[in-house]
Amino acid sequence: MRISKLFSKTSKNWPAGEEATNAKLLIKAGYIRKSSAGVYSYLPLGWRVLNKINDIIREEMNSIGAQELLMPTLVAKDYWAKTDRWEVDIAFKTKLPETSHQSTEFGLGWTHEEVVTDLATDFISSYQDLPTAVYQIQNKFRAEARAKNGLLRGREFLMKDLYSFHANKEDLDNYYQTVIEAYKKILQRLDLNAKVVEAAGGAFTKEYTHEFQVLDPSGEDDVFYCDKCDFAQNKEIAKVGIGDKCPACGGEIKESSGIEVANVFKLGTRFSDAFNLKFKDKDGSEQAVLMGSYGIGPSRLMGTLVEAYNDERGIIWPESVSPYKVHLVSLAGDNNMVAKSAEKIYTNLDKSGVEVLFDDRDISAGHKLADADLLGLTWRAVVSEKTGNKIELKQRSKPEIKLVSYEEVAKLVK
Amino acid sequence: MRISKLFSKTSKNWPAGEEATNAKLLIKAGYIRKSSAGVYSYLPLGWRVLNKINDIIREEMNSIGAQELLMPTLVAKDYWAKTDRWEVDIAFKTKLPETSHQSTEFGLGWTHEEVVTDLATDFISSYQDLPTAVYQIQNKFRAEARAKNGLLRGREFLMKDLYSFHANKEDLDNYYQTVIEAYKKILQRLDLNAKVVEAAGGAFTKEYTHEFQVLDPSGEDDVFYCDKCDFAQNKEIAKVGIGDKCPACGGEIKESSGIEVANVFKLGTRFSDAFNLKFKDKDGSEQAVLMGSYGIGPSRLMGTLVEAYNDERGIIWPESVSPYKVHLVSLAGDNNMVAKSAEKIYTNLDKSGVEVLFDDRDISAGHKLADADLLGLTWRAVVSEKTGNKIELKQRSKPEIKLVSYEEVAKLVK
Repeated sequence: MRISKLFSKTSKNWPAGEEATNAKLLIKAGYIRKSSAGVYSYLPLGWRVLNKINDIIREEMNSIGAQELLMPTLVAKDYWAKTDRWEVDIAFKTKLPETSHQSTEFGLGWTHEEVVTDLATDFISSYQDLPTAVYQIQNKFRAEARAKNGLLRGREFLMKDLYSFHANKEDLDNYYQTVIEAYKKILQRLDLNAKVVEAAGGAFTKEYTHEFQVLDPSGEDDVFYCDKCDFAQNKEIAKVGIGDKCPACGGEIKESSGIEVANVFKLGTRFSDAFNLKFKDKDGSEQAVLMGSYGIGPSRLMGTLVEAYNDERGIIWPESVSPYKVHLVSLAGDNNMVAKSAEKIYTNLDKSGVEVLFDDRDISAGHKLADADLLGLTWRAVVSEKTGNKIELKQRSKPEIKLVSYEEVAKLVK
Repeated sequence: MRISKLFSKTSKNWPAGEEATNAKLLIKAGYIRKSSAGVYSYLPLGWRVLNKINDIIREEMNSIGAQELLMPTLVAKDYWAKTDRWEVDIAFKTKLPETSHQSTEFGLGWTHEEVVTDLATDFISSYQDLPTAVYQIQNKFRAEARAKNGLLRGREFLMKDLYSFHANKEDLDNYYQTVIEAYKKILQRLDLNAKVVEAAGGAFTKEYTHEFQVLDPSGEDDVFYCDKCDFAQNKEIAKVGIGDKCPACGGEIKESSGIEVANVFKLGTRFSDAFNLKFKDKDGSEQAVLMGSYGIGPSRLMGTLVEAYNDERGIIWPESVSPYKVHLVSLAGDNNMVAKSAEKIYTNLDKSGVEVLFDDRDISAGHKLADADLLGLTWRAVVSEKTGNKIELKQRSKPEIKLVSYEEVAKLVK
């Protein structure tokens, strides 16, 4: 992709009315644009990052046997009424206009337990249909009173929600653990270091649930964690405090803000009871299906990555989500030979399947290099009079610059 | 994919409360499920079909230089107010709850001219920024009073909307024609035969606009067309009637119902005027940007394909959108050798990258073959005692059955 043709542009100024680092950097660099508080458009570069996150999530969900589908945003009032969730105050509500002589009211989906449970009644009737699991990646809507943290708390945001169905508690417990491992893999592939934190069961279960918290000052949660082992609890339920001994290993308890990027719930039979989702066991007896619900937020992950990986010059994307692998900068100036050489390198890298963003603009070297740092692609390749037949290659996250041949670039960044 | 593991199932019965062929067949076969009138879930098989349609659209959009992005569903009232579209009666509206002490009202996006025009003001300021074009594939919402035609008229439906920006009328006219050609290619790749039909300009333009109409009895539009040349007009604007002479070639005018699967509009400066989207021309003068808007409906296309391609036994998917290429049926019965052979064929086809749906269920041959016809995958491969080392290969759309080797299957369906 040529920057001269790119729909978005970097901005000289910081965006007005944004407090969060993720929003400020993503808007300045042209990844996203604010539509209203907590509601953003994903511009072409931002859409690429988001899709790379989505694809990593898809791969890990498919590998644990979950099947992708898509449920609707418009969820009729009847669904929510069955589980007493219609009056939940963070739901956006809408209805058909008066003129239609219908009174159908809808809540905009902010989780889909009701829809998926009702759906499953068509397909689950025997123990032989279990276990099974489905997921979707979909826009969700929450009427948050406060939406000032960029992609970390949106009124409209992307979510991957997974629902699993089981014949017995042991099977649910096993799958719950399988999903935790899959979420760990996703976060590892995104270079995010998250704690698996015990949290309150809330309305769904009396057992603890688990949250995946990335420890970062921008987080809205408070986490107590052990500095030696995996013990970690959300402040809301924690029975330990700073400096206490870890109840698991005797290490020291620390406190940090955390960004909740994922969570996992054992739903038990709450939803299957409400929607009469039953199965016949081997002995012919009818039983309620046990369910689990598991969420991870691609757009919140995008914001979290920016909070975790940035410096005073801009964003530093991990390679797995860099919108393009290489930011190729032509510092040709008036030198036609250099310009031609840069064009050739761009064409060749592109042909050999390397994702390249090519800064072919007629602007100053300083402006180009500043934009490369702001955009934060993993590799920067500079071609200039100085570099001769070679290319100056640098990782955004490291200070070292190497002079390498075209072949080495193609090899290193693939 | 093994049918024994598939989340959805075919149903013995026709769904209640559906009149349209597309909804009846898609629900019976387990591609979609109704959530409420005009609102459907896409089950794993249906989601695969929809994504194949989306990917074809993406390829053709990218090939005409359009860049993909994603705009929000929640479009604040301010946007619609600027173009006097807030009072449009088919929009779903929602707002933040009273408790939030904010009065932000939103319309759920049903087209995004306002959002994209406002967005473009950040990035278009000079003739050098033009032309440019962006598109998205996104759920849209329309509070249709009547929603009884399955995927042909949804309250929630998928749409690809493309917006283009130009410095002058000639450039807009050229791109308009480029998009028409791209839409023709998309429809060709979907094996859909559509007329490009002149229609009223509506609120946006005094020129004719163009609709892509698939002639089919299930369509809600009326089209007059020439039986010899490309002349076609929507009844709403037509100055010809059945049996008249074609004003273009003298052929005979016929009438048919049509399903509108796409449309293209020249917006002129209506939206750029409202959002003050201007550019500096080469001579330094400031001018309003000219815009075009182009829509094609992936979910409506899915419904249209079923209307166009079905018989009394079920759906007949064109190969480009068949959810899997091959429906492999094992008629092993008690014969372990046949069962093993079918398993091996499944594994080998899967490994060699052929998309296979494998009916490994322990049910009758009649049930399996009926399901294969209902699901309508392009190729059916049957393994049984009768076939020996060979495989019985049949296209869903043709009566001929061939006995072929495994190698021939892998070659034919790739």
